[in-house]
Amino acid sequence: MLRLKHLPIDTGKENIVFIHKRCPEFQTEDSNMTANRVEIHGGLQPLFASVYICEDETLVKPDEIALTDQAFHLISMPEGSEVAISPAPPPASIDSVRRKINGGILSAKEYRSIIADLAAYRYTPIELAAFLVSNASFMSPQEVLSMTEALIEYRRPADWGIDLVVDEHCIGGIPANRTTMIVVPIAIAYGLCMPSTMTRSVTSCSGAADAMEVLANVELSEEETAATVNEIGGCMVLDGQRLAMSATEDLLMSLERALGISTPQQIVASILSSKIAMGITHLLVDIPVGKTAKIRNMSEAMSLRKLFEYVGDMLSIKIDVIVTDGSEPVGNGIGPVLEARDVMKVLRCREDAPQDLREKALFMAGKVLEFDPQLRGGQGYYQARDILDSGRALEVMSQIVHAQGKQTPPPLGQLTRDITAETSGIISEIDGQILNRIAMTAGAPADKGAGIDLLKKVGDEVEQGEVLYRIYACKPTSFAFANGLAEGDCGYKIMSSGVTY
Amino acid sequence: MLRLKHLPIDTGKENIVFIHKRCPEFQTEDSNMTANRVEIHGGLQPLFASVYICEDETLVKPDEIALTDQAFHLISMPEGSEVAISPAPPPASIDSVRRKINGGILSAKEYRSIIADLAAYRYTPIELAAFLVSNASFMSPQEVLSMTEALIEYRRPADWGIDLVVDEHCIGGIPANRTTMIVVPIAIAYGLCMPSTMTRSVTSCSGAADAMEVLANVELSEEETAATVNEIGGCMVLDGQRLAMSATEDLLMSLERALGISTPQQIVASILSSKIAMGITHLLVDIPVGKTAKIRNMSEAMSLRKLFEYVGDMLSIKIDVIVTDGSEPVGNGIGPVLEARDVMKVLRCREDAPQDLREKALFMAGKVLEFDPQLRGGQGYYQARDILDSGRALEVMSQIVHAQGKQTPPPLGQLTRDITAETSGIISEIDGQILNRIAMTAGAPADKGAGIDLLKKVGDEVEQGEVLYRIYACKPTSFAFANGLAEGDCGYKIMSSGVTY
Repeated sequence: MLRLKHLPIDTGKENIVFIHKRCPEFQTEDSNMTANRVEIHGGLQPLFASVYICEDETLVKPDEIALTDQAFHLISMPEGSEVAISPAPPPASIDSVRRKINGGILSAKEYRSIIADLAAYRYTPIELAAFLVSNASFMSPQEVLSMTEALIEYRRPADWGIDLVVDEHCIGGIPANRTTMIVVPIAIAYGLCMPSTMTRSVTSCSGAADAMEVLANVELSEEETAATVNEIGGCMVLDGQRLAMSATEDLLMSLERALGISTPQQIVASILSSKIAMGITHLLVDIPVGKTAKIRNMSEAMSLRKLFEYVGDMLSIKIDVIVTDGSEPVGNGIGPVLEARDVMKVLRCREDAPQDLREKALFMAGKVLEFDPQLRGGQGYYQARDILDSGRALEVMSQIVHAQGKQTPPPLGQLTRDITAETSGIISEIDGQILNRIAMTAGAPADKGAGIDLLKKVGDEVEQGEVLYRIYACKPTSFAFANGLAEGDCGYKIMSSGVTY
Repeated sequence: MLRLKHLPIDTGKENIVFIHKRCPEFQTEDSNMTANRVEIHGGLQPLFASVYICEDETLVKPDEIALTDQAFHLISMPEGSEVAISPAPPPASIDSVRRKINGGILSAKEYRSIIADLAAYRYTPIELAAFLVSNASFMSPQEVLSMTEALIEYRRPADWGIDLVVDEHCIGGIPANRTTMIVVPIAIAYGLCMPSTMTRSVTSCSGAADAMEVLANVELSEEETAATVNEIGGCMVLDGQRLAMSATEDLLMSLERALGISTPQQIVASILSSKIAMGITHLLVDIPVGKTAKIRNMSEAMSLRKLFEYVGDMLSIKIDVIVTDGSEPVGNGIGPVLEARDVMKVLRCREDAPQDLREKALFMAGKVLEFDPQLRGGQGYYQARDILDSGRALEVMSQIVHAQGKQTPPPLGQLTRDITAETSGIISEIDGQILNRIAMTAGAPADKGAGIDLLKKVGDEVEQGEVLYRIYACKPTSFAFANGLAEGDCGYKIMSSGVTY
């Protein structure tokens, strides 16, 4: 038996423990394949952890086992408790991952085993990365369904007691595009139930949750979420169960973030499992298509649509897929604070509100309203516009913000830099990926006030020296890096207006 | 500036450092994408490391940075030295890895950048895993060539001053099969220069180096290797430069081991770069084909052959590929000590030497000898047999062992268990993968005396209850696990001898 010790080290999502070199219970040469992974017994269930061997008794004595923050939190036992350890074999489902790497197609049972092992922390981050990347290269529709079902098994599906529960999801990949924060208040004002779950950014400078968090608390418990939905008819929150659950998807997401990959197949599995767990019956999926968006062309968009429809049908969730223009950012602000600002301008029907954001949100809200069988086909858009223009959507937004917990919006970054046009002409292209990278380098989404404010969009005429956009940053280093990036390639293409044909 | 501290923690090949939560030089919210990776300045070159944040001042004070073993070893500065840190952006070449994950074909330049970043430790283990797995799903021949060339750039190719320098390599995947240790002495006795480099097991219970290490030291420096080759005409050692170099391949290999993957394409790149660095001009490649071998059928073997030939031709190394029977283990012993025993029996021409191992080694040695333009085609085998039967190969083996440093062979495992036939009949199949797993579970290759001794091979008649093989283990836990595995599936198929047609 070893005595439990807590070492206050933050190792992120990894269960890491320290064992002394002369620990009698653990010998590195015990079994070369499993030497660095142990099972710790004594808590409610065995805890899997990676082992670092150390020689410093101030860290860990030979009769101790030192758990870093995450592992100590999970084992939920006081320091000094006695625990036993045993070498942990690699999880059996790793064989399936290997098969997948070699081009195999996995069965539903294999996905279930993998997700079960993930949920029990039996995968090392490296093995998890292997699973993620092997899936990224190819997944059959049946595999996507299997993975979705496996993820749902770890959830407790919400039941709102009604037949029509709507939500929408955008595949993203283009900056800004904060339609959800406008669609939800409209749908609720119309009378639909729309318990919307959002995510923080995975591979971009801002996710819907990052922008919403500028205005309101988004980290609600399951109970708080239910209370908000029952009171108002909807919410805009982080997936509460996902926060509470055994971190499988969190782990997958943090890895996706670390690797900068998120493939359509894994998006379908992750989105649908999360929406179904939230009790959603009707889902609008927006696929923006553009040269620098996540989905590059119509053919990719069509396969993704069919994949959503196939998995949705099998899991009895009604899915409506729309394909939209993803050739440039929607709205002007890029980064949490700037995006929240645009949303509020639209909700307040301000004259300087970005019209592209308003129109796209109305189009989508119209589609969501038309999930209502009572509504005459084609009337959704007009209903949505009336609700927005009457101020009822703004009122609902204010109810949501108060129910979830109003936040004082953080200030915009104090460090600003104007990026200007090098030549005169007409803006022909805006590269969303470059703007995204500049905004991230400027500090978004961690620095909520960092980002980019677009002053010109595609089709606008500019004079040489006119401002194209403004960079906002909160920290000098980030600011300098972002400026450097923008100086290298500002992301805009300007076509001389005197085109010769 | 921060003061350097050494924390005696073994984190394997990972550069890990600890920084205090209140360290003024490092704020986690600095830049969410790069928060956990820093560049440490002050040594000969910047050191890249992953950061764990901790709150315990006994571990690291706010004005200190604590380096674990590997990082401290690499930075080569005394404790108390002053160093500066800066956030390290993800390596630029990660974009190429992402492209590869999405099915792209990488250029030679991209492979060079990736390998350069790997060599500078700019990849986290997770990113490295992503690179490995993305390559595992598909590599074009041109990509394999690019990766091979990129790996060679990090080597200092040996030059032995002669035109004919031979070696052989077996793709492996079937247990035992320790032909190299017989081929090398024969080739040297014949008069060829054969500086053979071996590897430890990557995904199996024993590599050639693990077996050779039973008899002699295999970890020679570059100078010691050169001295041995100049004195005797060859050697059987671990790739010395690989030991000394910046651990790129070591890192890749340890990951391959962790993930249990090793694909033909990465084998070609790794093997050829290593052999070319060793100054090899003529290489014999053995591809065993069998249902449970690494290469399953002739069509796979043919593509691998063509890949070896293509990359070999482009890099001016002459390659002769043979395809051999990989349907069952070659030799009787599986595991380092047992394999070394079989090899010595063959070299001593003992009557109880495994005939299949002797014949395969003679066949391969014959092919190697025929690299000599002076030798008449078809005479290689007979020459090899004469050399073996005359005892000259044994004599050379003894010279090699003494030159490299004789080792006292570790004893065989004391814990043994006989696995017996459940029915009478003729052995129709032996599953190499199952035997491999049992031998690994029994402790091989870390416990050199652990493994399996085969008493029956395919085609042998057995009576019910007759011993098929014996498990050897050194530690009770490993022994129990291995027995459990063998009881579940012993890996032998026995066909009733009264077959009805």
